[in-house]
Amino acid sequence: MILATRPNGTRDGELVVVSSDRARAVAVPAIAPTLQALLDDWDTLAPRVEEVSRALAGGLVAGEFAIDDDTRFLAPLPRAHGFADGSAYINHIVLVRKARGAEPPPGLETDPLVYQGTSDPFLAPSASIPLEDEAFGCDFESEVAVLTGDVPQGTRAEDAGRFIRLVLLLNDVTLRELIPPELAKGFGFFVSKPQSALSPFVVTPSELGDAWRDGRVHLPLETRLNGELFGDPHAGPEMHFSFHDLIAHVARTRPLGAGTVVGSGTVSNVDRARGSSCIVERRMLEILDGGQPKTPYLRHGDRVTIEMRQGGVSVFGRIDQRVVKYERPA
Amino acid sequence: MILATRPNGTRDGELVVVSSDRARAVAVPAIAPTLQALLDDWDTLAPRVEEVSRALAGGLVAGEFAIDDDTRFLAPLPRAHGFADGSAYINHIVLVRKARGAEPPPGLETDPLVYQGTSDPFLAPSASIPLEDEAFGCDFESEVAVLTGDVPQGTRAEDAGRFIRLVLLLNDVTLRELIPPELAKGFGFFVSKPQSALSPFVVTPSELGDAWRDGRVHLPLETRLNGELFGDPHAGPEMHFSFHDLIAHVARTRPLGAGTVVGSGTVSNVDRARGSSCIVERRMLEILDGGQPKTPYLRHGDRVTIEMRQGGVSVFGRIDQRVVKYERPA
Repeated sequence: MILATRPNGTRDGELVVVSSDRARAVAVPAIAPTLQALLDDWDTLAPRVEEVSRALAGGLVAGEFAIDDDTRFLAPLPRAHGFADGSAYINHIVLVRKARGAEPPPGLETDPLVYQGTSDPFLAPSASIPLEDEAFGCDFESEVAVLTGDVPQGTRAEDAGRFIRLVLLLNDVTLRELIPPELAKGFGFFVSKPQSALSPFVVTPSELGDAWRDGRVHLPLETRLNGELFGDPHAGPEMHFSFHDLIAHVARTRPLGAGTVVGSGTVSNVDRARGSSCIVERRMLEILDGGQPKTPYLRHGDRVTIEMRQGGVSVFGRIDQRVVKYERPA
Repeated sequence: MILATRPNGTRDGELVVVSSDRARAVAVPAIAPTLQALLDDWDTLAPRVEEVSRALAGGLVAGEFAIDDDTRFLAPLPRAHGFADGSAYINHIVLVRKARGAEPPPGLETDPLVYQGTSDPFLAPSASIPLEDEAFGCDFESEVAVLTGDVPQGTRAEDAGRFIRLVLLLNDVTLRELIPPELAKGFGFFVSKPQSALSPFVVTPSELGDAWRDGRVHLPLETRLNGELFGDPHAGPEMHFSFHDLIAHVARTRPLGAGTVVGSGTVSNVDRARGSSCIVERRMLEILDGGQPKTPYLRHGDRVTIEMRQGGVSVFGRIDQRVVKYERPA
């Protein structure tokens, strides 16, 4: 099942079911007007949405529309009730800490790093990144993420898989130059982590076939900067903490409400030939090689695209964002 | 205008308008079924809800019900899209850091400390605190909070006041013994900050009369532990960063969606005679006085109540919670 949210003048948009070739879609207002409504009552409603998905595969469905390049989807959840973003790729943690001159954290391989990010609103897949000042050091972080159902407090990793409803991509926009002073205060990220963007499509794990296993997505994640390949690291084997592990960690002392977004952290491989999913990693490698970073952080006008392909299909559609100058209210 | 949310079998509950003596209430489904719906379209809907509020003041209204001790309100927003919790009382920061053997953060008086907490679900005012293990060091933190409208990215403190829609209280439950290892990882709080509880009533700033000024609530906040007064520090003069300052800080690089909860942090006064709004502060004072903390963290069965009075009225109603043993799913 492949889902998306299209604009309808409301904050939460309208849920649509998407065909497997990502070329057609149809709204299902009689079943669930929004993705949040579907997630709120998943066990009852998902089978009915699956029926529509099968009907769409079988031929023309009343009310269907064509998806083309001009189709402007919202974030699947334009506002979610929670966003817990992990950092599950050890290679990324080690490189980024090196770049900041910081030590790897204690428990690097046993205790996941997670922060809670803003989830209202999430940026649409093709929304601009509103950057006031290039000196903030704006960076992308290409990630895989899942949407959970209701996860009971204290759920264990071995039970977490059954609470994963949907899989998606996200761009965890990060303001690198605001991080050191913020982390020095001891409370973690806040202003250094502005809004993230979500991919247009969310898919059930079963849509991924055998690329979904062990709570990981076993596909490369492709990031382009101004059209040039920046990296296509594999999201599977080097994801040290699986989504099962991440969910168990974030639900350790709290329940998670339906529709919580859990992010993987920046996808990163030890093999340098795979490139990077964020600028700061490349800068660190440049420092290690030549003493100096060469790649600048994002500038106004830069364009970032993020997608993941399987058998020629862009599974989650494309996150495609341009950085624009943001003017503060006078 | 005084509002609350009563259970109706949905996740978001039903919005009710409450009389000024907090004795009667009436639902307004034809105007706004939920508090979130009201906040989403405040400028249009709030005047209509105000009309109902005035009708309630004028006499019997069709559909009204009596509020008594058995009335079980939900959190006004049982699930919000965002919760940014500040730490605006410098005295609290200094004492808690001392208790952890940590230095006060850089920029203590110029740069607010804020973390993003879980907002789905918020605990109801009389909900139990589900604590798996007393060794987690469970503590309360009695706070004032506001609910915002849509706040544009980069809003300045001098403009922030007009985005404050409603005022409330919250209990920011904290697991003290989980904090040091978590903060050592550098990403801030997560498992050490489980669900918070909200007060039954939210009120417009105008309901507070001259107790609302300069973005602060100028009233004492009373906390009782097992029926005994634990503290009643004044929430006004020593709130170093006002809600205007806190909103400007959290909206520095992101917009805030309608219904974002912004918390003050633990209310705390330098004058020891006012007591404390959390256990860790009292423990620190005990250490300073006698070398040893004497007051234990919360145990299963302990009861915490938090409220704020103005002219004999409990403005926000009472947060009244008992700590209960939580069993993880098998």
